Amino acid sequence: MSIARTGEFGLIERVVARLGTGPATIIGPGDDAAVVIASDGRVVASTDVLVEGRHFRRDWAEAEDIGRRAAAANLADIAAMGATATALLVGLCAPPDLDVAWAEQLSDGLATEAALVGASVVGGDMTASPTLTIAVTALGDLHGLPPVLRSGAQVGDVVALAGRVGFAAAGYTVLSRGFRTPKILVEAYRRPVVPYALGPAAGRAGATSMIDVSDGLIADLGHIAHASKVGVNLHRSAFKVPEQMRDAALALGVDPYQWLLAGGDDHALAATFPADVPLPEGWQVIGEVIEGSTVTLDNRPWYGPKGWDHFRA
Amino acid sequence: MSIARTGEFGLIERVVARLGTGPATIIGPGDDAAVVIASDGRVVASTDVLVEGRHFRRDWAEAEDIGRRAAAANLADIAAMGATATALLVGLCAPPDLDVAWAEQLSDGLATEAALVGASVVGGDMTASPTLTIAVTALGDLHGLPPVLRSGAQVGDVVALAGRVGFAAAGYTVLSRGFRTPKILVEAYRRPVVPYALGPAAGRAGATSMIDVSDGLIADLGHIAHASKVGVNLHRSAFKVPEQMRDAALALGVDPYQWLLAGGDDHALAATFPADVPLPEGWQVIGEVIEGSTVTLDNRPWYGPKGWDHFRA
Repeated sequence: MSIARTGEFGLIERVVARLGTGPATIIGPGDDAAVVIASDGRVVASTDVLVEGRHFRRDWAEAEDIGRRAAAANLADIAAMGATATALLVGLCAPPDLDVAWAEQLSDGLATEAALVGASVVGGDMTASPTLTIAVTALGDLHGLPPVLRSGAQVGDVVALAGRVGFAAAGYTVLSRGFRTPKILVEAYRRPVVPYALGPAAGRAGATSMIDVSDGLIADLGHIAHASKVGVNLHRSAFKVPEQMRDAALALGVDPYQWLLAGGDDHALAATFPADVPLPEGWQVIGEVIEGSTVTLDNRPWYGPKGWDHFRA
Repeated sequence: MSIARTGEFGLIERVVARLGTGPATIIGPGDDAAVVIASDGRVVASTDVLVEGRHFRRDWAEAEDIGRRAAAANLADIAAMGATATALLVGLCAPPDLDVAWAEQLSDGLATEAALVGASVVGGDMTASPTLTIAVTALGDLHGLPPVLRSGAQVGDVVALAGRVGFAAAGYTVLSRGFRTPKILVEAYRRPVVPYALGPAAGRAGATSMIDVSDGLIADLGHIAHASKVGVNLHRSAFKVPEQMRDAALALGVDPYQWLLAGGDDHALAATFPADVPLPEGWQVIGEVIEGSTVTLDNRPWYGPKGWDHFRA
């Protein structure tokens, strides 16, 4: 059945019926607005939009995986501030011939990913559009901690990474060449595995800056370098190319370091810590903060692609 | 200059440079997420998406007006909870050939409308899309008041309206027939005049339910009737047809009550109050809450269009 048949309100009713309610929800879907707990008198908020053909393809992933990825992109931004996500709001623009089941599964994916951090979908909007578009806003709670910004990195800090990089980019390349394996790469593209809890853990441990790796590690550390007015030097030896990634790179004729250093979409977290701070479990050192303004690899410039620009790529 | 030439980050930099900072902003645009004051430990949040060709037309309105209208749709939802808006997040999906100046003026419009209530644009996302789409999320602060829901109307309450209805719908009809006057109607469509402060005023006065009139008065009061398990009876005599609307209706062969009772987009506020409560200034009685489950006009069913369904209209 198409959403043109259920209509806007019928579709909203069906989708809302499938959503759970998180502990931070005071008023959930169905009113003019939601009301969500912001326990320390501040709320963290971020918006990301996914457009069909650019951020996802319906023939490459199930609706539920697309929902999980749309949620992950936003939940990772909240984690990168050192906060815990509490709620998602979802704007869905869909062609009227979209199957209702697809919209329901998308919504299931959004709710499932949100539930990983104790958040839930508290509201949204649905409208017809020729271009399938998913706009997600995530809200989060710092629980009294200061937010970890991009601008706090200090010369002498260590640069650390939590979560994996390069997997989603490798999966994207595999899919775009018409393959469906290696499964570990394709699955990583379809459904990122984000170390959400390691964001607040970094904040508690005293991280001086943090970012969600969505544009690519070099590009995103470049954002930290720019905001903090420092340079970043990465150690190539800190990046092991996993066996399946190496095999795929060889088969496809790609330098796997392009996936590792310039691939987005895994939503790893990158942060800087004072050199004398013990890193929280799950974080590993990949470089150091130096004087300068660029990101280097073993003290040399990186000439590969840096990452992703949405109007140019 | 097109946004394909400035690129995503260039465009974001240009737009952010034009934004002001509201008093509730702790961390504004430029990091992974914004941080906004939520003074009483709760945040009100709502998302609305506007799609070109469906919610706006670039040949019918300037970019700044489209920005104001996109902001108004969300800010009105916050007001309808009895809250004061603090922040907007904006997702812009735009064709790469979009002129940078258009995006800047859109952003000016969003910021100008937000500033009317002391809010500001604190974050967002930009991406390429074949369909120009504006996804806005508004955040708000209840300042210790309980939220005013759709579900609290009681039999015996009065039904009251703040702000104007029918003007935007009349302006839309005028424009869709190829006319550009009467100016008051066309301007109302381009730039709604929303009584934002009357939302919190209604909450303080003890309103039992409230809604933002965006689908049409009959449809939106139907949402209150449904959520509150009551009926609503409106008094036709409470709705005066303004002279210019009457003239336009006559010229276009439209029943002006269709604009008044089924037209959305003015973002008036409708609320119910206990019969013994003095209404705050700016609110006027238009009917009463009765037993039942539908919305009637002088105790008779309304056979005209009720309002707007975004997948069917």
